[in-house]
Amino acid sequence: MGKNKKPPRLKARLPKGLRDIDASEIRARDAMLRAIRDVYESYGFEPLDTPAFEYTDALGKFLPDQDRPNEGVFSFQDEDEQWLSLRYDLTAPLARHVAENYEALPKPFRRYQTGSVWRNEKPGPGRFREFIQFDADTVGASSVAADAEMCMLAADALEALGVKRGDYVIRVNNRKVLDGVLSSIGIDPHADEQLGTRLTILRALDKYERLGSDGVKLLLGDGRKDESGDFTKGAGLTSHQTEPLMKFVMAQEQGRDSTLGSMEGLVQGNEIGQQGIDELRSMDAVLTASGCEDDRVAFDPSIVRGLDYYTGPVFEAELTFEVKDEKGRPVRFGSVGGGGRYDGLVARFKGQPVPATGFSIGVSRLYTALTALGQLKDAEPFGPVVVSVFDKAAIADYQALVTRLRDADIRAELYLGNGKMGQQFKYADQRGAPCVVIQGPDEKERGEVQVKDLIEGAKAAQSVASNEEWRSERPAQFAVSEDKLVEAVREVLARHRD
Amino acid sequence: MGKNKKPPRLKARLPKGLRDIDASEIRARDAMLRAIRDVYESYGFEPLDTPAFEYTDALGKFLPDQDRPNEGVFSFQDEDEQWLSLRYDLTAPLARHVAENYEALPKPFRRYQTGSVWRNEKPGPGRFREFIQFDADTVGASSVAADAEMCMLAADALEALGVKRGDYVIRVNNRKVLDGVLSSIGIDPHADEQLGTRLTILRALDKYERLGSDGVKLLLGDGRKDESGDFTKGAGLTSHQTEPLMKFVMAQEQGRDSTLGSMEGLVQGNEIGQQGIDELRSMDAVLTASGCEDDRVAFDPSIVRGLDYYTGPVFEAELTFEVKDEKGRPVRFGSVGGGGRYDGLVARFKGQPVPATGFSIGVSRLYTALTALGQLKDAEPFGPVVVSVFDKAAIADYQALVTRLRDADIRAELYLGNGKMGQQFKYADQRGAPCVVIQGPDEKERGEVQVKDLIEGAKAAQSVASNEEWRSERPAQFAVSEDKLVEAVREVLARHRD
Repeated sequence: MGKNKKPPRLKARLPKGLRDIDASEIRARDAMLRAIRDVYESYGFEPLDTPAFEYTDALGKFLPDQDRPNEGVFSFQDEDEQWLSLRYDLTAPLARHVAENYEALPKPFRRYQTGSVWRNEKPGPGRFREFIQFDADTVGASSVAADAEMCMLAADALEALGVKRGDYVIRVNNRKVLDGVLSSIGIDPHADEQLGTRLTILRALDKYERLGSDGVKLLLGDGRKDESGDFTKGAGLTSHQTEPLMKFVMAQEQGRDSTLGSMEGLVQGNEIGQQGIDELRSMDAVLTASGCEDDRVAFDPSIVRGLDYYTGPVFEAELTFEVKDEKGRPVRFGSVGGGGRYDGLVARFKGQPVPATGFSIGVSRLYTALTALGQLKDAEPFGPVVVSVFDKAAIADYQALVTRLRDADIRAELYLGNGKMGQQFKYADQRGAPCVVIQGPDEKERGEVQVKDLIEGAKAAQSVASNEEWRSERPAQFAVSEDKLVEAVREVLARHRD
Repeated sequence: MGKNKKPPRLKARLPKGLRDIDASEIRARDAMLRAIRDVYESYGFEPLDTPAFEYTDALGKFLPDQDRPNEGVFSFQDEDEQWLSLRYDLTAPLARHVAENYEALPKPFRRYQTGSVWRNEKPGPGRFREFIQFDADTVGASSVAADAEMCMLAADALEALGVKRGDYVIRVNNRKVLDGVLSSIGIDPHADEQLGTRLTILRALDKYERLGSDGVKLLLGDGRKDESGDFTKGAGLTSHQTEPLMKFVMAQEQGRDSTLGSMEGLVQGNEIGQQGIDELRSMDAVLTASGCEDDRVAFDPSIVRGLDYYTGPVFEAELTFEVKDEKGRPVRFGSVGGGGRYDGLVARFKGQPVPATGFSIGVSRLYTALTALGQLKDAEPFGPVVVSVFDKAAIADYQALVTRLRDADIRAELYLGNGKMGQQFKYADQRGAPCVVIQGPDEKERGEVQVKDLIEGAKAAQSVASNEEWRSERPAQFAVSEDKLVEAVREVLARHRD
C-alpha cells in the first residue's frame, strides 16, 4: 500500500454471528476433543476429514429450518456455475464420501470426524453461524447393535469429559414406533405429499421438554402464540388424532423394560411399530450385556429429533444437572448432542439403501456446560517467563538468556516492545508470567541476573500485615548468578505449581 | 425421503480441487501440528481461532494472482447484501482481530493459529483449493529481534518435526535492501502508480531459484515464453535497470557476515537500503547469541516473496534434501513456509502503522516432505481387535466381550455387518486388526473363546518351509478361558508391538 496517500480507513469487525476464540477456550476445547477422540478410537472408529464445502445438491436440504433465505446454508458458485455450499453438518459429507468410495471402504465403516459447520440462521446469544461438531457414524451395519454402540459411545465420551454418572442421560426412542402411532391416526409416515404435516408434527413433539403437553397440543392442532405474541401455525390435527400422539410422548416409565411395555401397549400390534419395539428390545439386551444400565441410557418416547431423515432409533444426550438461567432460576442444562439411524441418506447416491447410524456432539455447547460444571481447567496455569530489556543495545544477550531457559524446557520469551521497565512488568502481569528476568549493567558485570517473582509479589501486596516477615523468608525478587538462572526459575515455578 | 417413489440418483463427487483426508494422514498431520504447537508455546505464543470467513473488504486483496475470476477467493453475500469471503490466509484475519481488540490485547501480541484456508485458484497435482496453514505472528514489536525470533521458531519447529540440521535452511532477506536497489534504478518502492511494475519485478525475482538468471532476466525485461509456449509479459525494464537487480539477487556469499558485506556494496549508501542492511546485522547478532548459526538461518538476497505487503525482513523455510521428481531426477524439495514483516497491514484499520511480523508453515506441503523423508509414522500400527459374530442371537454376549477388552484399554470392536465368518476375517484383515476373538456354542459351553492371531497367521502363510515347526511353538489360533481373554489379547499385542 502506498505511503503517499492514506487509504480510506476500514472498520475492523467480525461478520454477524461469528466469533474469535481465545487461548483458554482453545486449550480447554482441544483437551475435550482429545478426550472424545480417545474414546472413539477405543471403539475402533477411524478419523476422516472432508472439505468445508460440497456441491449443494450433494448436501441436500435436511436442515430443520427450510423457510429461511438461502435455505439455511451459505452458498456460492464455482467457475463452472455449479452451486457449492459450506457444510451444515458432518453427516451429509459422510454420505457423499461413502457413496464415492463405496467399494474401497471396509464395511461396516466406523468413522469419526470433528470440524466446523456453518448455518445461515439468525444468530442469537450463544448461537453462532460457525460451530464445531464431533460426529461418530457407522455405515453398512443394519444391526441395532450399532445403535446401542452409539449410545454407549456417547455415554463413555461424556464420562471421559468428567460428567459424572447421574449428571447425564442418553435418551432413546425409535422412529418406527412413532411411525406406527402416526399410521394409527391416518398419517402416512413416508408419503412425500404429507412431508410438510409430518415435519410440523415432528417439530411439535420435539418441543415437549420445553413447552410441556399444553404447548405441544396447540402445535399439533391449530397453532400456538408464544410469549412474544408470535404465532406458529400448527399441524392441523383433530383432537382425536392428537390424543394418541400425546399419550405416546408421555409414555416413559421407570426403567427401559417398563417403558417398552408402556410403548408396546400404544402401538397395538401395528407392524412397523412392533418392529420398532423389537429393535429397542434388542438394544436393551446389548446395553445390559455391556453393563450400560438405565441410569446411563434410558428409553424415552418424547425423543423425536426434528429431522425427517431418521429411519429407526434416535438418541439425544442430555445433561441433567441444573444451571442458573439468565434470571437466576435453576434449569436443566439440556441437550448436548444427538443422532440416530438414517438408512436412506447414502441411498440418494447409491440408489439402494445403505444402513447407517450416527451420533453428533455439539462441542461448543458442551464446552459451555463443562465450564458451568467447573470441569475444564486451563492447561497452562502460567504465561511464559518474560526476560525484560533493560538496555536495548544488549538485546542479543537477553535473547541468549531466553534461549537458555527454553533449552531447559521452560516456556520463555524476550520482551519485544518499546516500553520502559514499569511497562514491561505490566506486560508480564498481563501475560500471566510467573516471573521476570532482569539484567542491568551492574548485574551483567557481576555475571548475575535478577529474578522477580510476580506471583509471590502479588500475594505479598495482598497480605500487607505479614509483609515484612514474609519478605525475609521468600523474597519476591532475588539475584542469582547467570549459570544458576534455570535452577532459580524452576524453583519459582515449582513453588507456585502446587 | 419417500419410499413410494425413487428420487433421481445423484452423483457422489468431490468439488473440483478439494479432497478427503484419510485416517493415517490425519493421525500423522495431527502429530505434526502438536509438535509445531509445542515449539510455539515454548516461545510464549498463544493460540487464537478466527472464523472461516470475513467481510471481503476486511480481508483485502493481497493474493499474488489478482487477475483470476472472483479475485482468487470464494465469496458470497449475507442477508444484508454485504460481501463475505472465505479466508485465503491467516494473516488478514489476524490484522482484523488485532485492530478490533487493540486496547485489550497485551502488546506485543504473540499468537499462533492453525486452520484451513481457501483459494479460488486453478487446482493441479498436489495443489488444492483448501489447505492447512500454521502461522505464528508477533504484532506490536518494531524490533527486528521479533523477526530473528520468527526465524529461530521456524528452525526449531522443523527440527521438532525430525528434519535434521543441514536438511533445511531458513533463508532471509530484507525488503528495505531491495527497495534501496529499486530506488537506484528509478523505481519508487512505494508509489501506488508503480504497483503493477513492482509486483511484476517481485514475482520475477521470486522465480530465481526455479528459472535461473536467464529466465528472470527475460521476466524483468520484455517477457518470457515457457516450455508449453505460454508467454508471460515482463516488467519492461532496460538492461541497465536489470543488471543491478540481477547482481543483487546473486549476491549471496558463504556465511551471513560475508553476504551482508556483498549486499552493502550494492546498496551504495542508499538510505533505506542501508537501514535494511543494519536491520539484518541486528538480526545476525540476536541469532548468533541464541546459538542459531548460518547452517540454520542464512541471508540470501534472492528471497523476495511475491506479496507487496512486506515492509522489512522476509523469510523462507526451505528443505534442502533431495527427492525424486516425476521423471526420477533428484530435485530439492524446496519451500515449506515463509513470511516477513508487514508493518502496514493493521494500519488499514487503525490509520496508524502497527508493526508486525510473522511466519506461515504450509502444513500439507510439509506433510508430503516429511513422508518423503520417512519421518512420519502411523500413530496406530494396528486396527482394533475384532470380536466376531458366530451366532447372531448371541450378539449381546459378544458385545460383553468387547466391553471387557475396552475396559482394559484395548481398542476393540464388535463386527456389525451381516457377513459369514470368512467375510468377518477378511473385514478384520482390512481393518488391520491384530487378532479376532471367536466364540461358538462349543466354546460358550466350555466358558472359552478362540483368539486368532492375524499377524502371526500372515507371517506363517509367508514362511511355508518352517510352517510346522512354527505352528507348534506359536499357534496362530488358540483357546483361552473367557476370564483370561484380556491377558491373552495383551500377549498377542505385545508380541507384535516390538
